[in-house]
Amino acid sequence: MSEAVFSFDHLDRFSKNIFQKMGCPVEHTNLAAESLLRADLRGVDSHGVARLSGYVRLWKAQRINSKPTIRIVHESPSTAVVDGDAGLGLVVAPQAMEIAIAKAKLAGTGWVAVKNSNHFGIAGHHAMMALPHDMIGMAMTNASPLVAPTFSVERLLGTNPIAVAIPAGKQPPFVADFATTTAANGKLEILQRKEKEAPLGWIQKKDGTPSSNPNELKDGGALIPLGSDREHGSHKGFCLGAWVDIFSAVLSGANYGPWVPPFVAFLNPPTDPVGQGIGHFFGAMRIDAFRPADEFKKHMDQWIERFRSAQTVAGEEKLIIPGDPEREFESERKKKGIPLNKKVVADLKELAQEFKIDF
Amino acid sequence: MSEAVFSFDHLDRFSKNIFQKMGCPVEHTNLAAESLLRADLRGVDSHGVARLSGYVRLWKAQRINSKPTIRIVHESPSTAVVDGDAGLGLVVAPQAMEIAIAKAKLAGTGWVAVKNSNHFGIAGHHAMMALPHDMIGMAMTNASPLVAPTFSVERLLGTNPIAVAIPAGKQPPFVADFATTTAANGKLEILQRKEKEAPLGWIQKKDGTPSSNPNELKDGGALIPLGSDREHGSHKGFCLGAWVDIFSAVLSGANYGPWVPPFVAFLNPPTDPVGQGIGHFFGAMRIDAFRPADEFKKHMDQWIERFRSAQTVAGEEKLIIPGDPEREFESERKKKGIPLNKKVVADLKELAQEFKIDF
Repeated sequence: MSEAVFSFDHLDRFSKNIFQKMGCPVEHTNLAAESLLRADLRGVDSHGVARLSGYVRLWKAQRINSKPTIRIVHESPSTAVVDGDAGLGLVVAPQAMEIAIAKAKLAGTGWVAVKNSNHFGIAGHHAMMALPHDMIGMAMTNASPLVAPTFSVERLLGTNPIAVAIPAGKQPPFVADFATTTAANGKLEILQRKEKEAPLGWIQKKDGTPSSNPNELKDGGALIPLGSDREHGSHKGFCLGAWVDIFSAVLSGANYGPWVPPFVAFLNPPTDPVGQGIGHFFGAMRIDAFRPADEFKKHMDQWIERFRSAQTVAGEEKLIIPGDPEREFESERKKKGIPLNKKVVADLKELAQEFKIDF
Repeated sequence: MSEAVFSFDHLDRFSKNIFQKMGCPVEHTNLAAESLLRADLRGVDSHGVARLSGYVRLWKAQRINSKPTIRIVHESPSTAVVDGDAGLGLVVAPQAMEIAIAKAKLAGTGWVAVKNSNHFGIAGHHAMMALPHDMIGMAMTNASPLVAPTFSVERLLGTNPIAVAIPAGKQPPFVADFATTTAANGKLEILQRKEKEAPLGWIQKKDGTPSSNPNELKDGGALIPLGSDREHGSHKGFCLGAWVDIFSAVLSGANYGPWVPPFVAFLNPPTDPVGQGIGHFFGAMRIDAFRPADEFKKHMDQWIERFRSAQTVAGEEKLIIPGDPEREFESERKKKGIPLNKKVVADLKELAQEFKIDF
C-alpha cells in the first residue's frame, strides 16, 4: 500500500478544522485533535486520523454530541463518576483524567469512572497526562464487542485496552498500552490491507474453531483474549478484558459486554441498553503519596536500566521497555512527518470536500 | 500420586500449631493459618500447606521474623506504605489490606504498597477481604525471579499475580486471580510429579529456545510471560508482570526484578539489595464512592448472568466466570476435606516430628 507523508501541523490543522465543522467549541477542538494526533505520532495508525471519518459519521448519526456538558455526577474524596453527555471520547477522556489528577493532588490518588462517552483514541495518551505531575497514570476503556471469552462463540467483550504510565528520572517513562486480546483489531486491518494470513491464536471462526483469515470477523468470527487458547492462558486474557469492562462500565453506569454500542455508524446500538454510551476508567496516583518522588525515580531508573541491559536471545538486539517503540515513533514522526496510506488519504480528501475545507 | 484426605479443621489446627511454635503471637497465628488454608480450600494446592515447611525453613534461616511490628511508614488520605518488618506475608498482607479498607471508608478508595514482606499465599484471598464491605478488592505481589521478559534469556520477574474481587448481588462475586505468566509455577510442579511434558509456550531453555521440559528451570530455563511468544502478545504479559513489580516494590521500597529474594531457603538473597524484602500492592474501592451499591450489584448480576449463559463452542458446557472453579472447590473441600499428595503428607509429618506436635 503506497503511502504519502504529511507534517504533524498539517494533520493537526485539518483535524481541528473538521472538529470545528462538527460544531465542537474551540477548547474541545484542541483536546480532540491532541488525543487523535497522538496516536499517529506514536505509530498507532489505526487510532489516529484514519478514524476521523468514523467520528464524523457517528456525529451525523447523532450518536456523538459535539457540544457536550461533561460533568461529575457522583464523587468522594478520591473518586468521581463523570457523565460524558455523549461527547467525543477524545474530549471526555482528557477532561476525566484532569479530574483524576485534581483528586490525587488532595487525596493521594484519584479514580474516575466515565459513562455516556465514545471511542477515546489511544489509552496511553490519557495515562501519560499524569506524568508531568509526578503521578502514575492509568486509563482503560471498554469497546464494541469483537472478542469471544474462552469457551464461547459469542462476541461479548471489546479489545478493552489498559494503559499504565509511570514516571522515571533520567530514563524516559515506562508506558504500557495494550489491548487485552492476543492482537488488537488494528493488527488485523494491516493484514487485510496486505492480504496476508493471521497467525493461529488471534482469531476464531463463528463456531469457535481456529482461523487465520483476517476477515473472519465479517463472517461472525471473533478475536481471542490474550493467551490464544485455554492451555496458554486465554482465560487470563478474558479476566483482564472483563476487569476493564466492569471498571469502565458497571462502576460508571455505561453499557457493558455485548451491549456496548458499535464504533461503526452503519451498525445500530442495541435497542435494550443497560447503561449510557461506552465507559472508561482513569486513575492518577501521586508518587509522593507513597514515597519521595526523587527516591522513586532513582529506583525506576535502576529498574529500567537493569531490564534494558538484560542479556537477549540470539538475534535480538535488546529487551524492549514498554513505551520505547512508541517514543521512537513520536520523535521520528515529529521531525519527518506522518505517513498515511492511500485509503486514509482518500478518506480525508473526501472529508475535506464534504466540509469545503483544504486538505 | 496417591492422596490422603484431611479435614479443614485438622489442617487448620496443625498450621496454627506450627506458626505458634515459630513464635507467632496468637492473632498472627490465626491470620497466617487463614491465608494459608484458603489456598487449599480453593484448589490452589501449590500455595497451601504444601508451602508450610518452606515458611519454616525461611524462619530458621532468619529471613522471616515471627514477631514483626507491622507499621505504616508513609501515608496520604487514600494511600499508605507499610513496612512488614520481615514478617510472614500471610500476616502482613491481610493487615495491609485492612488498612486499604479503612482508607477506602474515609476517602472512597485505599491503596497500600508493602515493603519488607515475604510470600503472601494466594492473592485472591486478600482481594476478597474487601467483599463484605461492599468494596472491590485488589491484590498483587512480586515474587522470586523465574520469568524471562520477551526477547530475554534472563530471569528478571516473578510470576507476579494479580487478583481482583468484585461484589455482585444474587450472583457470587467475580474473583480473578492469576499469574501474569502463561502458566503458574504450580502447574509445572504438577507436571513434574506426573512426569509429563509441558505445552510449548510455557517455558524456555537457558538460551531462550522453546522447551517442553517441566524441569527446565533447574537448568537455567525460564517461565514465559502470558502470551507465550512475541507474535501472540508475550510483550503484553511482560507489561503486566512489570506493572505488578513496580507497584509492589518500586512504590514501596521493596526489592524488585532480579533482586527479589528467592522463596526457597537454600538460595541466598542477592547481596546487593535495592530495597527490603518482597513487595505487595493492595487496593480497596468503595462501590458507593462510584454509584449506589444496590444499583451496581444489580448490574453485576446481569453482567455475570449474560456471560455465564453465553453460547459455547462444541464440547464445552459453559463459559467460566472468574472465581467459579475456586468457589466450587471451596464448597466441596469444606464438606469433604482437603486431599494432599503423599509428598506433602510426608513433609507435614516431618514438621510434626520436629516440633513434637501431633499431625
